[in-house]
Amino acid sequence: MKEIFAMKRVAIIGVTGAVGQEFVVALNKHPWFEVKQIAASERSANKKFVDAIRDPNSGILKWHLKEEIPEYVKNMIVESVDDIKPENLDLIFTSIESEAAREIEGRFAKDVPVISTSAAYRYEPDVPILIPGINDDHVALLEVQKKNRGWKGFVAPLPNCTTTGLAITMRPLLDSFGAQKIIMTSMQSMSGAGRSPGVSALDITDNIIPYIPKEEDKVRIETGKILGKLADGKINPANLKVSCTCTRVPVIDGHTEAVFVETSKHVDPETVKKAMQDFSDKVSVSGLPSAPKNYLVVNDDPTRPQPRLDREVDGGMSTVVGRLREDTVFENGIKYVLFSHNEKMGSAKGAVLLAEMLYKKGLI
Amino acid sequence: MKEIFAMKRVAIIGVTGAVGQEFVVALNKHPWFEVKQIAASERSANKKFVDAIRDPNSGILKWHLKEEIPEYVKNMIVESVDDIKPENLDLIFTSIESEAAREIEGRFAKDVPVISTSAAYRYEPDVPILIPGINDDHVALLEVQKKNRGWKGFVAPLPNCTTTGLAITMRPLLDSFGAQKIIMTSMQSMSGAGRSPGVSALDITDNIIPYIPKEEDKVRIETGKILGKLADGKINPANLKVSCTCTRVPVIDGHTEAVFVETSKHVDPETVKKAMQDFSDKVSVSGLPSAPKNYLVVNDDPTRPQPRLDREVDGGMSTVVGRLREDTVFENGIKYVLFSHNEKMGSAKGAVLLAEMLYKKGLI
Amino acid sequence: MKEIFAMKRVAIIGVTGAVGQEFVVALNKHPWFEVKQIAASERSANKKFVDAIRDPNSGILKWHLKEEIPEYVKNMIVESVDDIKPENLDLIFTSIESEAAREIEGRFAKDVPVISTSAAYRYEPDVPILIPGINDDHVALLEVQKKNRGWKGFVAPLPNCTTTGLAITMRPLLDSFGAQKIIMTSMQSMSGAGRSPGVSALDITDNIIPYIPKEEDKVRIETGKILGKLADGKINPANLKVSCTCTRVPVIDGHTEAVFVETSKHVDPETVKKAMQDFSDKVSVSGLPSAPKNYLVVNDDPTRPQPRLDREVDGGMSTVVGRLREDTVFENGIKYVLFSHNEKMGSAKGAVLLAEMLYKKGLI
Amino acid sequence: MKEIFAMKRVAIIGVTGAVGQEFVVALNKHPWFEVKQIAASERSANKKFVDAIRDPNSGILKWHLKEEIPEYVKNMIVESVDDIKPENLDLIFTSIESEAAREIEGRFAKDVPVISTSAAYRYEPDVPILIPGINDDHVALLEVQKKNRGWKGFVAPLPNCTTTGLAITMRPLLDSFGAQKIIMTSMQSMSGAGRSPGVSALDITDNIIPYIPKEEDKVRIETGKILGKLADGKINPANLKVSCTCTRVPVIDGHTEAVFVETSKHVDPETVKKAMQDFSDKVSVSGLPSAPKNYLVVNDDPTRPQPRLDREVDGGMSTVVGRLREDTVFENGIKYVLFSHNEKMGSAKGAVLLAEMLYKKGLI
Repeated sequence: MKEIFAMKRVAIIGVTGAVGQEFVVALNKHPWFEVKQIAASERSANKKFVDAIRDPNSGILKWHLKEEIPEYVKNMIVESVDDIKPENLDLIFTSIESEAAREIEGRFAKDVPVISTSAAYRYEPDVPILIPGINDDHVALLEVQKKNRGWKGFVAPLPNCTTTGLAITMRPLLDSFGAQKIIMTSMQSMSGAGRSPGVSALDITDNIIPYIPKEEDKVRIETGKILGKLADGKINPANLKVSCTCTRVPVIDGHTEAVFVETSKHVDPETVKKAMQDFSDKVSVSGLPSAPKNYLVVNDDPTRPQPRLDREVDGGMSTVVGRLREDTVFENGIKYVLFSHNEKMGSAKGAVLLAEMLYKKGLI
Repeated sequence: MKEIFAMKRVAIIGVTGAVGQEFVVALNKHPWFEVKQIAASERSANKKFVDAIRDPNSGILKWHLKEEIPEYVKNMIVESVDDIKPENLDLIFTSIESEAAREIEGRFAKDVPVISTSAAYRYEPDVPILIPGINDDHVALLEVQKKNRGWKGFVAPLPNCTTTGLAITMRPLLDSFGAQKIIMTSMQSMSGAGRSPGVSALDITDNIIPYIPKEEDKVRIETGKILGKLADGKINPANLKVSCTCTRVPVIDGHTEAVFVETSKHVDPETVKKAMQDFSDKVSVSGLPSAPKNYLVVNDDPTRPQPRLDREVDGGMSTVVGRLREDTVFENGIKYVLFSHNEKMGSAKGAVLLAEMLYKKGLI
Repeated sequence: MKEIFAMKRVAIIGVTGAVGQEFVVALNKHPWFEVKQIAASERSANKKFVDAIRDPNSGILKWHLKEEIPEYVKNMIVESVDDIKPENLDLIFTSIESEAAREIEGRFAKDVPVISTSAAYRYEPDVPILIPGINDDHVALLEVQKKNRGWKGFVAPLPNCTTTGLAITMRPLLDSFGAQKIIMTSMQSMSGAGRSPGVSALDITDNIIPYIPKEEDKVRIETGKILGKLADGKINPANLKVSCTCTRVPVIDGHTEAVFVETSKHVDPETVKKAMQDFSDKVSVSGLPSAPKNYLVVNDDPTRPQPRLDREVDGGMSTVVGRLREDTVFENGIKYVLFSHNEKMGSAKGAVLLAEMLYKKGLI
Repeated sequence: MKEIFAMKRVAIIGVTGAVGQEFVVALNKHPWFEVKQIAASERSANKKFVDAIRDPNSGILKWHLKEEIPEYVKNMIVESVDDIKPENLDLIFTSIESEAAREIEGRFAKDVPVISTSAAYRYEPDVPILIPGINDDHVALLEVQKKNRGWKGFVAPLPNCTTTGLAITMRPLLDSFGAQKIIMTSMQSMSGAGRSPGVSALDITDNIIPYIPKEEDKVRIETGKILGKLADGKINPANLKVSCTCTRVPVIDGHTEAVFVETSKHVDPETVKKAMQDFSDKVSVSGLPSAPKNYLVVNDDPTRPQPRLDREVDGGMSTVVGRLREDTVFENGIKYVLFSHNEKMGSAKGAVLLAEMLYKKGLI
């Protein structure tokens, strides 16, 4: 007898924003998740989605993606956050400012799992920062969180989008060779700064802005936590020193990072390449609906990765590594350049992949 | 009785190219140097300068600078290299491809000082790589070179434009605190790749190219040599490990570099700032005609340096440092972002400043 | 009994260039056409395709498209033009410089149909300039051409990529309302200038170049010819005055044109919109493998068309019109902005669509 | 006996904004005008200028210009608009939003001349739109305005920055040959959209936005008014039909316009060039402190004007014309491309030039 499969009922909070729109697309025709409610700020509430994203003065649709607006959402009513009914939901995706997120995510987590792109809960001891395929064992901390807080649901945040690529590429390095030190310079895309209003063209054209507030601390702390070990109900951060300089460059989508790593033992670039590829081949999330064909790609072409070319690889869900070579400053050093799509793997689509992994583990 | 001052007679070889044009401007109305001959490839020879830089098909002037073409050069005849008469010259500036430079610069150095922007002689043991204000004592190696080779003149090359800013900012660090290790990621401007044809807009728009052939080795070797010690007629490279990743970004002029340095003893950013400013205040080239008012500028605004804003500082002759802060990976670490104008201090105008310094020392 | 269908055997000449690569992609898994031979200049001959597009110095693949290199072509041997065997072919696509095209296309047209993206034959009296869906009746001139020249094949050129969008949008205007005058200003993308070397980033970043050699004459002459009437074996150009200013702007792909038209009778924008949509709905090429779902799209959003958003519409095969409104200078005036993808409908993929139309008509 | 010259006392209202900052620079060390008061919104009031332009969160100075902040203004206190004392002033420059401008400019004009960059009064019958050198005779309308309204001062607005270049280039055409029709497509810079927040980099990078709200009507109406005739106390608009399409392009500063003009009689481009140059040579504002050396420049290089090169000409105060050629659509047609710096001649610096002209005429 055929098993009856019930679609999981999900809501998107913050649906009108840039990341919210990415959620709308990432969940279009999803085999397991069905969008039942969408919510945004009072200003948008009680309007159809297409009306809620319409500029009130000009009448122009503020839809930011190449993909067309999916049919399923066009006439769905955007509700206010207070009208979200957790009792009718299996999962909530949120994309809201950190301050508001603190209250809203906590409120809903009492009843239902919340997957978040905000920083509000990332640094709590009983909250893992999850990258599907990288630290799946940290999922166990969600149970601790539920018990601690007396919640039926939980808050599971993604990392900052600049952390994502770094943690992904470090996982096989750390596992295979050990690592103590990371020095990284990021060249981050403009979409990472959001859209309301986002980076001004007058500021960034023909320019670099060598500063992104708080970003460097986020990368340092999150990388250690993600790559740390869960034991006795808490995460011991990886014993990794991380120092970085984060810059904004005139690139539309996708973050590029120049990474220098000190490993515990000497390794040559070919061995690192093999370790990365082996890791990619066996990655846990392989085969999930939103997973890329290749989780981690090592490109031998010295001119890669390039944002314009590599942001298209596997729908923005692959992390691409290039220029793998020895570093001569560290005792045992490896250096490389990585590319990670901040609006795809680093954001809503990565959150959906996380939801798929949690679903498979029975947490949703 | 008034001393009679005779202008030094100079020639520019490679005058029609991008750097050659910068020489034309940098020497306009120079108080000490007078351009007596200009030369370029056979194709341009025997034409007036304005005709030599005219596109033969379209009739359009290929003049690349914001400054207008100086009057003095407009009708000057571009000669072939073989028509350069060293016996009538006190100094030659060259801007030619490295392969050709090897033969041409060597030929003229037999008779007259040659200041070069090419890499042809940079790595010879008896050739210093000179940055005026940074390693003026290496000038003594030019005498060794003359003796070694039996030349009346010499070849004095500038470093690669990516080395310039790094070596300038490292000088006060090394002198005041000692330093062992440098990790650097550069975000280099498109003008650094030249103009014939230079970087294709289709390749670099909305993109980063994370590779510049040979650049990283040049920076590593040149930085060590410039900051090294001259003793017994040769330069012992500084005991500095240098590792870098050089990238090309969509910026018109000026190189930005994110630098991480391990110093010999612990220093805080304020102390480093003071050391840099003190160095700048006392720099040897201060007051020379092409020297900037501030040789090294430390900017406290965390959003600086920015290419669009800082390339204008002091006519592109200042090196600008920002984001000075502790590094947490190195034992005693300092990190900062620097900006150096590759077409000004890093090229022709820097070469003219070098000539001024050598003239003051009596070598020209 | 099922009819046996034989794939048409085609060759691509100029396969390694930018347009040649677009042909390679446009013919990938084509239901009717099978690439049997590929050719390029002597320098590339006798190499596998992947080796022929490899930079000999750096070893880097010079592949310019987002799509991956199709499997079918990777190991196909690039032949020299002289090794193309027309007797084994049903059709040749060419993408070569106009001067070489004159001889090569003429040579092969003796035996086999040639569809060309070059200007070499466009202005011959017995050569139609064809846009599939716009002037299909001009196909009859190919028979005249064959007879005139004693050829078994023919040369069928596409127009210049700037003409394409203009002629497509003018067709319904002319047919429904008549038109006498066109004033047009183009803002053309950088890919329209090719790739070897193409537009220099230093020339076009933060800039406009208000001149594209010969472009304005091409648009004027070609528009008249395409929209003209074929009678008695020759084309009488449409009685249309066309004046334009063609500029290059910092846009990667796709040409934008601001068009002002004097129609024969007064029409309001809504009526024009309807005429364009009706034309699009009934366009002759509808349903062909390379045809877009919507041939001509009229967008009411006043901020459209935009290159970044509209170049993705229907794989670059739709022409998008926006800002349709009355013009107040002409007696009966209409003005609008159009967008046409110069590398898709305006080039190789448009040539493949033309081949499909000619095949349906039995000419291939 | 030497005449005693008293500096005119001026105020800048809206001093912290982008145009306000341009005023600060344009009035630095001005020989006739001395800034006595500066004002901005309540948020900035009672702070020193340098503190008022400091971002309250980041502490970063929001100074947008290449020129350094002039010393005279650094510590000047920004007052609230209500603290401006017209009785102590000879002139007020304003740069405020149109809605607020209506009330504020009217209030101060009761006592003192106001030169405005806003649109608030432009379309009133007793208010001329002035471009110094173009319609100086319209200054007489200011007397009518004063009488009408019982004001001691007046409001004298500049045109929209897109009108400026068009009206300047049309003046000699109209005077020498007559003209009936203008079709124009603009490619406007991003700085024309202001800075708070201005154009988003995500919207304009690699893109064109073919719509600027209200701009086309402004250009049409203002061009007619500026080139009209003052008679009997009112301006009869020039008998000129103007139709345009205004677009935004990825250019930092300076508007480019492709213009097609129908003149009253046939003229060849050489004659037009001569008429423009003659006009420029004799322009009324020649010699004023802010006037350019060449008011109107005709460049024969077909690749000019280019924003990157021509925005530097004469400090952004010259209007540059290129590609002057016959138009084939109009009965007697001329077409050309013009460049006008929207932040200099089209804004604050143009307003200062207007003030100089009015001062010379005794109105200030």
